[in-house]
Amino acid sequence: MDFGIILRVLGLLLLIESASMLPSFGVALYYQQGDSKALLLSIIITLAAGLILSIPGRLKKSKGMIRYKEGFLIVGLGWILVSLFGALPFYLSGSIQSYLDAFFETVSGFTTTGATILTDVEAMPKGLLFWRSFTHWLGGMGILVFAMALLPALGAGSLQIYKAEATGPTTNKLTPKIGHTAKMLYLVYLIITVAQVITLKIAGMPLYDTLIHTFGTVGTGGFSNYNASVGHFQNPTFEWIITIFMFISGANFTLYYDALHGNIRSLLRDREFRLYVVIVILAIVLIATNINHVIYHNVVESIRQSSFHVLSITSTSGFAATDFDQWPDFSRLILLLLMFLGACAGSTAGGIKIIRLLLVFKIIRKELYRLIHPRAVIAIRIGDNTISEETLNNTAGFLFLYLLIFLVSTIILLAQGMDMLSGVSAVATTLNNVGPGLGQVGPALNFSTLSDFSKVLLSALMLLGRLEIYTLFILISSSFWKR
Amino acid sequence: MDFGIILRVLGLLLLIESASMLPSFGVALYYQQGDSKALLLSIIITLAAGLILSIPGRLKKSKGMIRYKEGFLIVGLGWILVSLFGALPFYLSGSIQSYLDAFFETVSGFTTTGATILTDVEAMPKGLLFWRSFTHWLGGMGILVFAMALLPALGAGSLQIYKAEATGPTTNKLTPKIGHTAKMLYLVYLIITVAQVITLKIAGMPLYDTLIHTFGTVGTGGFSNYNASVGHFQNPTFEWIITIFMFISGANFTLYYDALHGNIRSLLRDREFRLYVVIVILAIVLIATNINHVIYHNVVESIRQSSFHVLSITSTSGFAATDFDQWPDFSRLILLLLMFLGACAGSTAGGIKIIRLLLVFKIIRKELYRLIHPRAVIAIRIGDNTISEETLNNTAGFLFLYLLIFLVSTIILLAQGMDMLSGVSAVATTLNNVGPGLGQVGPALNFSTLSDFSKVLLSALMLLGRLEIYTLFILISSSFWKR
Repeated sequence: MDFGIILRVLGLLLLIESASMLPSFGVALYYQQGDSKALLLSIIITLAAGLILSIPGRLKKSKGMIRYKEGFLIVGLGWILVSLFGALPFYLSGSIQSYLDAFFETVSGFTTTGATILTDVEAMPKGLLFWRSFTHWLGGMGILVFAMALLPALGAGSLQIYKAEATGPTTNKLTPKIGHTAKMLYLVYLIITVAQVITLKIAGMPLYDTLIHTFGTVGTGGFSNYNASVGHFQNPTFEWIITIFMFISGANFTLYYDALHGNIRSLLRDREFRLYVVIVILAIVLIATNINHVIYHNVVESIRQSSFHVLSITSTSGFAATDFDQWPDFSRLILLLLMFLGACAGSTAGGIKIIRLLLVFKIIRKELYRLIHPRAVIAIRIGDNTISEETLNNTAGFLFLYLLIFLVSTIILLAQGMDMLSGVSAVATTLNNVGPGLGQVGPALNFSTLSDFSKVLLSALMLLGRLEIYTLFILISSSFWKR
Repeated sequence: MDFGIILRVLGLLLLIESASMLPSFGVALYYQQGDSKALLLSIIITLAAGLILSIPGRLKKSKGMIRYKEGFLIVGLGWILVSLFGALPFYLSGSIQSYLDAFFETVSGFTTTGATILTDVEAMPKGLLFWRSFTHWLGGMGILVFAMALLPALGAGSLQIYKAEATGPTTNKLTPKIGHTAKMLYLVYLIITVAQVITLKIAGMPLYDTLIHTFGTVGTGGFSNYNASVGHFQNPTFEWIITIFMFISGANFTLYYDALHGNIRSLLRDREFRLYVVIVILAIVLIATNINHVIYHNVVESIRQSSFHVLSITSTSGFAATDFDQWPDFSRLILLLLMFLGACAGSTAGGIKIIRLLLVFKIIRKELYRLIHPRAVIAIRIGDNTISEETLNNTAGFLFLYLLIFLVSTIILLAQGMDMLSGVSAVATTLNNVGPGLGQVGPALNFSTLSDFSKVLLSALMLLGRLEIYTLFILISSSFWKR
């Protein structure tokens, strides 16, 4: 293990985080709500920690190679570290009294979950709220990918980092150089961000609110600066704009890059993207039919509410335009299942990703075929790509581990007296980086009433979900540390 | 496809079913409650149908070979057929007015599920109740295995039938001749049956009740002749006896055969049996702790109730000594998860089986190891047995298909207005062949209120569960019927 390079990259990451707090500090200075001091202090502490970490990394003789194990350690520790320091502004300002709560909120931000322990979001100063939402934007494409985009010369072998942090099983590098790929992805990300800011501004949303809700949309996080989330505005136009951008943010960003280069066919022919469209439309129709006449007495409103929340959950943003926990059980079940599904690989969304559902179909078909033709050699294809046996096995292992983590965590929450639906959905919404759940953690409520132990567990689940389990799980595996 | 042999075996099966109704006819004659006519008529109809089916089978030139496809067809159609004819006594007697309800009840019997549409079990004549419970006994080890035990010369290649009907992924043949294996398994089954009858009789249960509850226990079915199930007796001794025999019936019967031949070590060293013991004890402790002071104010009673229901659910019998739907959500969740787990392969239990949980652990470990050592060749072992890559892949495919069927069926039930917990547990309890669920289909209630469509769906789930999905699924696969 090359600890020199690990410390150096982690130090660098904190320096970047420190710099990332500057815009929030600017906002705090502008609005003068008493949070600028805490932000400045956090910037200085994070800066100092970054410098201190870098020193032994610089002194130690290091070949500067990031291989398998270094990659996993950097990503695993990196995400924990930025959450620990990212929590400082909330804690130092006194806006969140308990450091654990501040940590939960920050993990929720970076992992683009959007679950909150705040009972009154609107009471928080605007600089802090800006930082809270900006973590979504930073975490969306991956904070280490962000670091690579800024500093392409981060080190040889950073493909390993990219792999560990990217969402979904497909990691189509856009260009041979991973630093360049990171830059291209952030360019696409930036274009979508700017497009949403402009659209919302034109529609009449105040600039500050526009930025907050754009970070929450493109990062698929879902933090709002209002207690009623997007429902605060009671504005159908805003809801439709956010719905569309949630849809956009749920698709594979590499396809957009191709599309920007004139290759729109690769987007339209992508099997995962097509299934994404089908699932979204199907879910919208099913839920709209279910809630029409029961909750809303107007087809247009039923469709709008259904569309907004299907995309909010599928893209794992977790914005709420209404309290969907009041909807019939059929609609709530569909939403619960969509939480697990998530959107596409290579997007900013959480969940198990639609590509893995496609792979599950392939696994089932292969096994049924093999029962009838035991000696046949079967080639698995998705679109034009041949899928290796390893990818299928890896997917199966991933899904079983995901399911086990879900079940064990739910048992732990219920052992503390939580009811079935609240426990199931609290785990589902954090593990899948959605945000609000059902019941006790529904969109009209929050996570503040949970025990400290539960908050630690759910924070771990958010990180596990964002890093797609293996990256963190491998760190506690004994064979990782052998030799 | 050799349709000659298929028709001949199916005809034979109906002849055996017809003969199997004779004891119930005897009971009906003894108690004189007006059900003997319907039973006699059913015997004659089933006999006639069996003869008619056999004729073309005999006339057609057939090599008498049961290969892959024939095996699947015989088992799949065989189970549907015996359920269709087994429903006749209930329907013809007028005890169950709708043929669909009678079919549901019979499928529930043969698949050893024990879910009922009867609102008042005690109103049914004793001959019919005997038949209802006897189907548990017939279905437990498999009705085609039963046919093979009676007629070992059933045909060459009947291993295929044995494989399709046996529970769990391991099919350790006891002897090279499959007919002999079937006989040995039924011998073990008979010994356990007789042992339970004697034990319950000594403890003071009336003979008729003893037979009914023994069929329900050793077949892990769970039909009782009382509305309050085993709770009717309010007798702790009966409950403990049934608890112990439910435990026994949940283990792999081939291990008992070994044990009877002096090889007790193979039972004690079996990894699946050990994990079965650990899971059962753990679940009993967790639930007893959870219900003590809340439901029962007495540690002994908490342990008894917990033990009874943990084993009732794990062995997928589904007897109830009390309304466990009133227990806290933590206990209900544990029971719900145990429904899915089921007990051991090679037992009469339903569910996914503990061996598959072991295989899932192996899959996860293998994938984590492979992440760290991408080029390593990994041998998977459970105890002394090496597990092939095919077994792992087959298990993964099976579990994903199981999960998909569960989710889709739940969505369909909820679309008809069922609440979340009732829908989830109705699917879980039928697919896993347990019996009672939670909520609307809890132990104090029944399945009579469901729509006809739901009853058909749940009947299909019971058959899918009992035949472990592949056998029936393969029949609707297009490549099965090609060439």
